[in-house]
Amino acid sequence: MDLRGKTLFASGFHSPERGTIDILEDVLIEIGADGRIGAIHRPGEPNYRSIRDARDETGELVSLPAGCYLLPGFVDLHVHAPQYPQLGNALDVPLEDWLQTYTFPLEARYQDLAFARRSYGLLVEDLLASGTTTALYFATVHQEATRALVDICLEKGQRALIGKVAMDNVAECPDYYRDASTDAALQGTRALIDYVRGHPDNGEDRVLPVVTPRFIPSCTDATLKGLGAIAAQCGCHVQTHCSESDWAHGYVLSRHGATDTQMLDRFGLLGRRTVLAHANFITVDDMELIFTRQAAIAHCPLSNAYFADAVFPLRAALEKGLQVGLGTDISGGPSASILENCRAAVLVSRMLESGVDPAVTRENRGAAAPAQIDFRDAFHLATAGGGIALDLPIGQFTPGYQFDAIMIDTKASNGTIRLWDELDRGDQILQKIIYTASAANIASTWVGGNHIV
Amino acid sequence: MDLRGKTLFASGFHSPERGTIDILEDVLIEIGADGRIGAIHRPGEPNYRSIRDARDETGELVSLPAGCYLLPGFVDLHVHAPQYPQLGNALDVPLEDWLQTYTFPLEARYQDLAFARRSYGLLVEDLLASGTTTALYFATVHQEATRALVDICLEKGQRALIGKVAMDNVAECPDYYRDASTDAALQGTRALIDYVRGHPDNGEDRVLPVVTPRFIPSCTDATLKGLGAIAAQCGCHVQTHCSESDWAHGYVLSRHGATDTQMLDRFGLLGRRTVLAHANFITVDDMELIFTRQAAIAHCPLSNAYFADAVFPLRAALEKGLQVGLGTDISGGPSASILENCRAAVLVSRMLESGVDPAVTRENRGAAAPAQIDFRDAFHLATAGGGIALDLPIGQFTPGYQFDAIMIDTKASNGTIRLWDELDRGDQILQKIIYTASAANIASTWVGGNHIV
Ligand SMILES: [Zn+2]
Ligand SMILES: [Zn+2]
Repeated sequence: MDLRGKTLFASGFHSPERGTIDILEDVLIEIGADGRIGAIHRPGEPNYRSIRDARDETGELVSLPAGCYLLPGFVDLHVHAPQYPQLGNALDVPLEDWLQTYTFPLEARYQDLAFARRSYGLLVEDLLASGTTTALYFATVHQEATRALVDICLEKGQRALIGKVAMDNVAECPDYYRDASTDAALQGTRALIDYVRGHPDNGEDRVLPVVTPRFIPSCTDATLKGLGAIAAQCGCHVQTHCSESDWAHGYVLSRHGATDTQMLDRFGLLGRRTVLAHANFITVDDMELIFTRQAAIAHCPLSNAYFADAVFPLRAALEKGLQVGLGTDISGGPSASILENCRAAVLVSRMLESGVDPAVTRENRGAAAPAQIDFRDAFHLATAGGGIALDLPIGQFTPGYQFDAIMIDTKASNGTIRLWDELDRGDQILQKIIYTASAANIASTWVGGNHIV
Repeated sequence: MDLRGKTLFASGFHSPERGTIDILEDVLIEIGADGRIGAIHRPGEPNYRSIRDARDETGELVSLPAGCYLLPGFVDLHVHAPQYPQLGNALDVPLEDWLQTYTFPLEARYQDLAFARRSYGLLVEDLLASGTTTALYFATVHQEATRALVDICLEKGQRALIGKVAMDNVAECPDYYRDASTDAALQGTRALIDYVRGHPDNGEDRVLPVVTPRFIPSCTDATLKGLGAIAAQCGCHVQTHCSESDWAHGYVLSRHGATDTQMLDRFGLLGRRTVLAHANFITVDDMELIFTRQAAIAHCPLSNAYFADAVFPLRAALEKGLQVGLGTDISGGPSASILENCRAAVLVSRMLESGVDPAVTRENRGAAAPAQIDFRDAFHLATAGGGIALDLPIGQFTPGYQFDAIMIDTKASNGTIRLWDELDRGDQILQKIIYTASAANIASTWVGGNHIV
């Protein structure tokens, strides 16, 4: 049911601050005609009953069914939209094969607009069904296909940030799949920004344009510099990969004599609205620089196990105050589900802390500093953290924020959650949802108060 | 549809040998009145058409719907049945808390038969819905509740191996939850064996009894010795935990001056029908001994990240020829799904190989020997490997084997698989199933040819 102009009576969870879960029990959430949260009333507040009764009388009160919990919609900070058809595939081959035999040829197919429309349509539907209400997308180098992704997100109602990928470095990109020139990369980027901002169906800015150099190795200096200028001029978001692997980190060091982070900064690509994917191998100075610039990091725990050969030092970054959210990195990560990435984020954080090799003594096995996070942190990253990273009012149930939300039906048929009335209490219910829910338990999705699925 | 006495026309996958997937395309599987596979016919074989036509004529031919794939049912080699109510919970607390505040009090509740019936009923249903056709269960110390689990498995049709837990060491078990004496532990074990073997509904031995010392620390020497004698006398299966953590491995070393594996062997608990849970910290000599005795290992990748602080050296064990299958370790592991544990097995194997800490140089980050496995290995472990570990004719589509199978519906509503006709071929389809399927995609389950779900 569309909730604009309604008041929702619901229980659920959100995590505006990392490490704590705010339990919402029988709250009233007033949602404005613009899809933003107007107010939240808790039982016991003086006007609670009178507001509930008044809304009930006018027919504006909507109640969540029993056994259902409200969560903020998930924010996926790193999706390669064109790679969706190979999700869960080709993870058994070496990186070079993955790129040259699978990924680049697949991305090149998006020259075919019909293929792009079909693929992007399924992706957006499936992400919404998985609870992802906001996604930050890498598209391809293609103009038309990228516009199709914009259209599809607007049509299906997903909040999305979309970039035409810029990649023009002949030495690092395949002949059949790259920008023809620096000019093509920059013009294409500008054209997409204009397209998104001028789109007749985008009055609410539900889709935003993103300056998207694939990563430094795939771009010429001229393109990186030009993209930095566009970002400054247009004030839009920036996304790229940063220090994902030993190779990538080393490549930039040897091409520029400076780190990935430092070079992005020099090119004007490191700002408050920048999201760096991965960042596994950033230095202490890099972390400091990212903090100073208030840029954000998309942590992609599943993908990193396949392509980074290391775990992002998440806890260190969080304790330093960095803005971090989660990414599926479709299809470097084998799952389209932010829930599965929440689980993975906890899992790999524990493995970073404890170490992995039983042949090494306990003392020498793990990382030097505490590294583990728990479900509370993961949930925060997946929701409020992602919103903060994007500098958007999403990911929490707070007045002024967009009502982007999902309803978890713990009793859904084909679902995978079992709650026990006599055992499960408070945020332990959330812990169970995070560990055991599957797409079948995600019974409703709203973006900006609009009912989507 | 019940398939006893029928011939199934289907496509699917199985992996009788580790590392290779046998792709079944439009095969005919003849299933006997006893639920065993009589024969498998592939297109191109001389009698294929005539058999198909004949079965079709007599109404014995059953066809899998389009978009559906047949897999062997999953074998879960390590489930603490009583812990199901806390699945996905209490993973944010230290081990000691997990045991004393959550796990032991929960297990102690199974003194209440009504609670046991309700909990075990849901567990068995949910595991079947997740595709687990065979489970090796730790129950509790309680006689009645453990009998209830036997009854429920027989009623619902799951193949199960069930042990009353033996734990009588006053120093390591809580007062409110342990066997009253060595005698109680041994008598209880014998009584369960008699109950299972004499059960009027167990004519086909669908449920088997298991000698189940919790682990060496929780048992007295007298009990361990007595259980070894029972195992020898009754010829039944044995399950226990072995060298799961630094603490457990060290405890046995200091109590006995020998390793966990060596002591289990001396107590007569290490044989062809023994399944050792975890075994993360076994030595090279232990591995050799396990190999010699043809005992098996239940690898529980998710659980280990929470409670073992190390990754089981799976590939080394497999290359040595050890019998290994997968376990969820409910509720030490946060998922009831063997599919999720397949994914985790691949993930952690890669992390063991690559290492985890980006602050360490590439050369020093990972394990000394190659450690990674792929989806083929994981699928083998989850099916045929589990069957071999249990010394039972299950887990593969081979004449003489039980028809224990699941049907994956790639187009199920609420499902999470997307196949692309023009891209997905051969065992890549299986790879997608393993990485992206959820319970909603498991559309049918058969055990011994009987249709269960
Ligand atoms: Zn990426
Ligand atoms: Zn266990």
